[in-house]
Amino acid sequence: MTAAIARLDTRMLRAPLARPWGPDVLDLTLIEVLVEDSDGAVGRGLSWTPTIGGHAVQALLDHDIRDFALGRPADAETLWPALWARLHEAGGGGITTIAMAGLDLALWDLAGRRAGLGLVDLLGRARTDTVAYGSGVNLHYPLDELVAQAERWVAAGFTGVKVKVGSPDLADDVRRIAAVREVLGPDRFLAIDANQRWTLDRAERAIGELAPFDLRWIEEPLRADDLPGHVALRDRLRAGGVDVPIALGENVHTRYRFAEFLDAGVVDVVQPNVVRVGGITPFRGIAALADRHGVEVAPHLLLELSAQLALTLPHETLVESVEDASFADLGILAGDPPVVVEQGRVRDTGRPGLGIELAAAPVPA
Amino acid sequence: MTAAIARLDTRMLRAPLARPWGPDVLDLTLIEVLVEDSDGAVGRGLSWTPTIGGHAVQALLDHDIRDFALGRPADAETLWPALWARLHEAGGGGITTIAMAGLDLALWDLAGRRAGLGLVDLLGRARTDTVAYGSGVNLHYPLDELVAQAERWVAAGFTGVKVKVGSPDLADDVRRIAAVREVLGPDRFLAIDANQRWTLDRAERAIGELAPFDLRWIEEPLRADDLPGHVALRDRLRAGGVDVPIALGENVHTRYRFAEFLDAGVVDVVQPNVVRVGGITPFRGIAALADRHGVEVAPHLLLELSAQLALTLPHETLVESVEDASFADLGILAGDPPVVVEQGRVRDTGRPGLGIELAAAPVPA
Repeated sequence: MTAAIARLDTRMLRAPLARPWGPDVLDLTLIEVLVEDSDGAVGRGLSWTPTIGGHAVQALLDHDIRDFALGRPADAETLWPALWARLHEAGGGGITTIAMAGLDLALWDLAGRRAGLGLVDLLGRARTDTVAYGSGVNLHYPLDELVAQAERWVAAGFTGVKVKVGSPDLADDVRRIAAVREVLGPDRFLAIDANQRWTLDRAERAIGELAPFDLRWIEEPLRADDLPGHVALRDRLRAGGVDVPIALGENVHTRYRFAEFLDAGVVDVVQPNVVRVGGITPFRGIAALADRHGVEVAPHLLLELSAQLALTLPHETLVESVEDASFADLGILAGDPPVVVEQGRVRDTGRPGLGIELAAAPVPA
Repeated sequence: MTAAIARLDTRMLRAPLARPWGPDVLDLTLIEVLVEDSDGAVGRGLSWTPTIGGHAVQALLDHDIRDFALGRPADAETLWPALWARLHEAGGGGITTIAMAGLDLALWDLAGRRAGLGLVDLLGRARTDTVAYGSGVNLHYPLDELVAQAERWVAAGFTGVKVKVGSPDLADDVRRIAAVREVLGPDRFLAIDANQRWTLDRAERAIGELAPFDLRWIEEPLRADDLPGHVALRDRLRAGGVDVPIALGENVHTRYRFAEFLDAGVVDVVQPNVVRVGGITPFRGIAALADRHGVEVAPHLLLELSAQLALTLPHETLVESVEDASFADLGILAGDPPVVVEQGRVRDTGRPGLGIELAAAPVPA
């Protein structure tokens, strides 16, 4: 019989970014979630948000989720749907799912430690390593800094990279992507990410002008809420003979919504963020759904978690390695890291559970 | 020139329900939001949630929204899209929009007070009163209490009512709806609300069995996230010759999502909750969108706000009057109420702004 959840505590941490993600994204917020079961076994998970809602996530955990969870079986897959139903009136995803993730991850961590297995082997290992790509939150970088970053990625052995687009002047995007492609040469892959900055017309034109640079994908060309817009964009690109895969998912918070994008046939690469969708439990459901649609899964950010999950997926995929922004880079790990990136590949290190031990005294919130 | 937002304070209140909405819904949580502009003008709005997320809503207001809002123009329609974009990474609706509503309502209150107008005249009055219907959160009532409630509604002069369905045994729903219809007689309207309790198969069967009771609408037959399910349900009901209008919207948090339900042609009555969608600003957008689709708008709960909004809509609509659960009933108003319900009609009282002055010392959170 599964032990019950006997304790749930939270702790907020702020981690300064050595390379800020923009003028107002100087740090990341994490909410560590500790669970202890009625046998005394402990698991630690985390919620995460770059800029918005850290205190709200912690409040939801402390005031709503804890009361619901205490006394229930310490099993992530049993708890998830019940907690989802309980929180539903507070929204179909967002703060709710981000907060749920902290507990879900803690329960998977507990399960792994109890089994003496790292997450990859607990879930079912599909491979020992996979591709990591260099990624930069760099729309605000001047061109020379962008080029220098691309050169660092090449020197570090990455076989592919992703950079931001969405400059006010499209000609600047063209110049920047041309310069990065020049650094990469013809064989490394290059993905671009518009972070929802374009209108439909602008997206159509921008993708048309950028397509000649041989793009692995264009990410979030439109507002993430706008499914009809994605249908229209796909149809326009097809009509214009432009063939660039569409990636999205970092701002899609539920399996139901992923299903709608997949059913509409408007996404070629889905990018669930394991925290934003509510944890490993729903992430696996989304990945299975994508697999049934024959659509690639490329997890969003959170290298330490995303890489481990990628090693369990049925098809090899790409893992995002944002420069100087892994938990190890941020200096918030107390122990050895759960994954290592070398020469454009990432592998797990087999630490038990999630393998993530956050520093005892990180930067306070 | 519009004055700037110079101050934003929040206060949490809990209001016990004289008639609990279920075994674990004993009170409602409100977050009062006070804004003051750089001219010293003050407005008061409120966020609201029956059971989940009150502390998270307050945290989002105190830690994220306040920082963003201070110094910006004290104009709801200018602020809303910018704040939406700012909060977007924390979700496409839910805690985010519930929190946004508190500020949006405060800014409309401020605008009304400044203009010396009540909300109805500020937005543009379409009529002096409209239909209010008796509504009960009563699935947990034994049959005799349900019948007694229906008798109270008839005695109070209501011309229509709404009751809950979704009993474990469908035969119980049939018995309960038959009993209520018996009390109402043939001329009063009767709507039913399943609160997302049914699967597709169950919904098809239940609506088929309940349709003979001449239903004004069936509300939330399916999980609110499930747009494809609603398409399937509509098609099945049509194929079976069952003609009951479908109502939904209390768990739809954004205009984008309402647009998808409307475009899919699966909803006959949309029911935005002015707080859950993020305030009056997005509510008006949703109502305009519904009007373009020729679909009825029946605002969800929150009588004091919903009734005032209903008096500004282009077509007459129905306003929900939950027994003993208006702000006046809850005893949380310090002054006179902004609306009055009599003989199944509701009218505003012309108080300036929202006309809602919350008691200085309500039940503490």
